[in-house]
Amino acid sequence: MVGETLATKFVSMGHKVKMGSRTANNEKATAWASKNGGLASHGTFADAAIFGEIVFNCTSGQVSLEALQLAGRENLQGKILVDVANPLDFSKGMPPSLTVCNTDSLGEVIQRQFIDVKVVKTLNTMNCLLMTNPGALKDPGNVFICGNDDSAKAEVESLLRSFGWEKIIDLGDISAARGTEQLLPVWVRLMGKLGTAMFNFSIVQ
Amino acid sequence: MVGETLATKFVSMGHKVKMGSRTANNEKATAWASKNGGLASHGTFADAAIFGEIVFNCTSGQVSLEALQLAGRENLQGKILVDVANPLDFSKGMPPSLTVCNTDSLGEVIQRQFIDVKVVKTLNTMNCLLMTNPGALKDPGNVFICGNDDSAKAEVESLLRSFGWEKIIDLGDISAARGTEQLLPVWVRLMGKLGTAMFNFSIVQ
Repeated sequence: MVGETLATKFVSMGHKVKMGSRTANNEKATAWASKNGGLASHGTFADAAIFGEIVFNCTSGQVSLEALQLAGRENLQGKILVDVANPLDFSKGMPPSLTVCNTDSLGEVIQRQFIDVKVVKTLNTMNCLLMTNPGALKDPGNVFICGNDDSAKAEVESLLRSFGWEKIIDLGDISAARGTEQLLPVWVRLMGKLGTAMFNFSIVQ
Repeated sequence: MVGETLATKFVSMGHKVKMGSRTANNEKATAWASKNGGLASHGTFADAAIFGEIVFNCTSGQVSLEALQLAGRENLQGKILVDVANPLDFSKGMPPSLTVCNTDSLGEVIQRQFIDVKVVKTLNTMNCLLMTNPGALKDPGNVFICGNDDSAKAEVESLLRSFGWEKIIDLGDISAARGTEQLLPVWVRLMGKLGTAMFNFSIVQ
């Protein structure tokens, strides 16, 4: 759902997008590509990694490493990898726990395992419908970004601005992913309390 | 600092406050009491627990259980315990980690160990100068509250309102403390980024 929302938004803005899946003929990816015109295509994770100038990890956090290994280290090398995933474990029911947290984070794990990739963590603290459409909220709040490579963050920030994001907070290196991933437990609670996923964190000063 | 800020505020509002410490003649507590007039007094943790209708845990999260044991189970029995503490571990330098998180929280640990106490977790997601003075920010943002006892939460909410808090979000039972305590890692990052502790989380819809 996250990948499809982001992919559709990028195509609508004139970007070419290849949606990667475990198999080349994934049913949902095929349907998405055939519905979204000439800029949209699909293939394996490796196909998508080869194709993209910028690669988005929109997989479930528990399978992100496996998906990225299928994408291929050599295909990702030197590229920007925007990590939107959260290491949520729903296997024991609600509320979910995190498979990694506190002194480590999924963003850091990915960066350590793919040292030649420029991991930028962002957009993981909100629902995907808000990611691509901050104007849906009167006050859209903040989007956080972190990563070790400043020029990669600048490129991703310009994508965020193209979605309409204005209040972008750069929290520093990828270890700040500990902070943003640990926002999820209260996010899940808030979703239950507010009865909607269309809300966001705003930092007021 | 948290305890002194809260205690001073309560005295200024006409409440009687006894500040508890490990020893009856703690230098800071003595100085605080002598400076704050007839409503202010000091004593041991046990003295404070006996004295208070509502007890505030403003200790460092790592020593909270020890302080509460010194306060005495029998002295706390049936009372509201407002837990403002965070289980932050600064022993390995910055950034701090959490001594308990993810599938448990300090709030829950306290509630489990003191089953006859009505633990209400609140105010732990902000600097103490903001806790007692939400008007310091043009938009003060939200204060979260959670706990198992609805009437205890209602009493604490009325204290929060007396400080000026309006946007109070009740996240449910004490297990929601996992969420609010896990806000601290990003809070610490934000403090470094913003160069101030006078900020807050606001939930925008």
